[in-house]
Amino acid sequence: MRIFIAGVDGYLGWSLAQHLALRGHTVGGADILFRRQWVEEMNSWSATPICTMAERLRAFRECYGKELQFWSLDLRDYTLVETMLGDFKPDAVVQLGECPSAPYSMIDVNHTVFVQTNNIVSTFNLLYAMRDVCPQAHLVKLGTMGEYGTPGVDIPEGFFEMEFRGRRARLPFPRSAGSWYHWSKVHGSNNVMFACKIWGLRATDVMQGVVFGTHFRGMEQDKRLMTRVDFDQAFGTAINRFCCQAVIGHPLTLFGKGHQRRGFLPLSDSMQCLTLALEHPPAHSEYRVFNQFQEVYDLTELACKVQKVAAVLGLHVAIENLENPRIEAEEHYYKADHKHLADLGYRSAHNAETEIKIMLQDLLPFRDRILKKQHVLIPDIRWDGARVKSTALEPPTATVA
Amino acid sequence: MRIFIAGVDGYLGWSLAQHLALRGHTVGGADILFRRQWVEEMNSWSATPICTMAERLRAFRECYGKELQFWSLDLRDYTLVETMLGDFKPDAVVQLGECPSAPYSMIDVNHTVFVQTNNIVSTFNLLYAMRDVCPQAHLVKLGTMGEYGTPGVDIPEGFFEMEFRGRRARLPFPRSAGSWYHWSKVHGSNNVMFACKIWGLRATDVMQGVVFGTHFRGMEQDKRLMTRVDFDQAFGTAINRFCCQAVIGHPLTLFGKGHQRRGFLPLSDSMQCLTLALEHPPAHSEYRVFNQFQEVYDLTELACKVQKVAAVLGLHVAIENLENPRIEAEEHYYKADHKHLADLGYRSAHNAETEIKIMLQDLLPFRDRILKKQHVLIPDIRWDGARVKSTALEPPTATVA
Repeated sequence: MRIFIAGVDGYLGWSLAQHLALRGHTVGGADILFRRQWVEEMNSWSATPICTMAERLRAFRECYGKELQFWSLDLRDYTLVETMLGDFKPDAVVQLGECPSAPYSMIDVNHTVFVQTNNIVSTFNLLYAMRDVCPQAHLVKLGTMGEYGTPGVDIPEGFFEMEFRGRRARLPFPRSAGSWYHWSKVHGSNNVMFACKIWGLRATDVMQGVVFGTHFRGMEQDKRLMTRVDFDQAFGTAINRFCCQAVIGHPLTLFGKGHQRRGFLPLSDSMQCLTLALEHPPAHSEYRVFNQFQEVYDLTELACKVQKVAAVLGLHVAIENLENPRIEAEEHYYKADHKHLADLGYRSAHNAETEIKIMLQDLLPFRDRILKKQHVLIPDIRWDGARVKSTALEPPTATVA
Repeated sequence: MRIFIAGVDGYLGWSLAQHLALRGHTVGGADILFRRQWVEEMNSWSATPICTMAERLRAFRECYGKELQFWSLDLRDYTLVETMLGDFKPDAVVQLGECPSAPYSMIDVNHTVFVQTNNIVSTFNLLYAMRDVCPQAHLVKLGTMGEYGTPGVDIPEGFFEMEFRGRRARLPFPRSAGSWYHWSKVHGSNNVMFACKIWGLRATDVMQGVVFGTHFRGMEQDKRLMTRVDFDQAFGTAINRFCCQAVIGHPLTLFGKGHQRRGFLPLSDSMQCLTLALEHPPAHSEYRVFNQFQEVYDLTELACKVQKVAAVLGLHVAIENLENPRIEAEEHYYKADHKHLADLGYRSAHNAETEIKIMLQDLLPFRDRILKKQHVLIPDIRWDGARVKSTALEPPTATVA
């Protein structure tokens, strides 16, 4: 298949390009390198050193024996997007080109407006270009489990059969997102669903859990091919950040009581799932939703896992509860379906502890890079609009298993 | 109260400014006169001749004995919005400053992106400015009954108690909008709901039915104070357009079979409802949703009402079914709650036929203005992306009551 990746320079985009090449697909992609700028704006960098795009493309060709056709362009420019898709003629388009950070979207009005408009407009440009130049292509749009929030009832995959006052209907499951970023993903999901309805496009909307990992199984071990691993407050997600903290002996930091429950999956599994979605496209006009995660974990439970695995490698770290900069339920019911991908054959490649061990080993050589930026590990972007560093809660509430 | 109206030059905004002045409130407002440009872009104009804003403001002062403090600015410019609200110090902000047209949003990618970003960004700027300069103020945001679409079950007011797999929760009722414009309103509703949650703002989100009417009861009869009445395919809504058609002897045009059911309310009622919401603000941090309409009508039933009332005035018109340019259910279940405003005291000022008679009388002096632009009465903006004039369906399917 000819697969186009919007956001091919990112954590998932760069990994997916390689995963798909190994599966024999022809890969193209676009990126304006926004993610590098955003992380720099957060005064941070990737724990793993990242090559220039020119070097990445050269390494890709050398290691996988094929070209990655690359466009350096802003997805908000419709004319460029249409020309690009017209040239590449994709069988599938993967939208990984949105800004993926909740804290970044909460900084101030400029960041809120940037995240929502960037995400909405880039997806519209892909939808319109697909309608006009490759209407048979399949859109795989990256959403997030965070679109559902913590509704207090089971979370189905996108839609549910409801009964209301004696009548029945199949309707989109209500979304209760927890940041301007997460709401931008809800807006995008709604827009993609409607485009399928009116234009006959087909799409898979992936409600993805939190991904963790430094490489996927089978990835070439050339240093120029490494994907980024962020650990700052805005772009470093839970397990990745814990592992970076463990590597430098920094306490693993939980927000509030640390009993938020979320779906997680290793990077290898994310690659497996996205590939399954791509290789099993929906029918024309179909909009389908996949909840994509391996397992639900309590954040404290995960920190304890990282602590335990790190100790085996001689890295001894504490767990610390910080004031929660977010406004969110810290203890809540959480049960989400994730059957659609399993039906297509998804089986987890690793358990979390195995993956964490690999991550710590991958990150140890970059200890100094994390140490140099360790000031970015403690959050100061608060959901109420303040910009104040979180301090430790006393007494610590984390219970080590 | 000090009430600020975003979009004060529009159909509802200009009427509301006058209604609130008559109720003794102090009114301010902003507008960049986009609506005038959009209607001109549709090659149309208001059936009622509209003064310049300078003339409107002069007439307002002369007729109501008070100033309307006016800002000519684009609501997408945050700094201007913040300064303005800081100066005006509103007790309430009414967001009527969004682009309100489904067909306009369906024209092409530029219009889609404009409508969604204009509507989202202007509302964000109001929310942030309220948070930072007038956090006690009450936001009244104009939404639309079209956010719900036609779900096939009863439509509650914003939220519903759901039971799902044995657990219960109160969640936002699923939205199923029918155009990029309607989705922009859903996105805005979600954003306002979240702002109330994290910042403690208070808001009333008004899911308004289709408004019809040429003036509200009690409005001063100075010609310079008339509000606009659009009849083009993008900005002319159902009953207003039927009345303009009747005045020039043009067939009343229904889309498809013409049995879509929607909530409608006279302009007088819209003014009454918005005023009730403003004068009975919610508690701090409360986000409440009002479904605002008088009655649900089948479109054919409404066309027949207009036909009947027009005949009494000597205006004899046919009813014609056109190819439907929209992608929508043409026959469907429709039952929506509208109890919250009734609980606050809303009683309809008129029945539809009385209002239609007043409208026809108001519009008759402007027959020539409508005649000159009658080419805009037949739609050519189609939901599938084509731009082709709708032709008459044969045989006509409308049944005259």
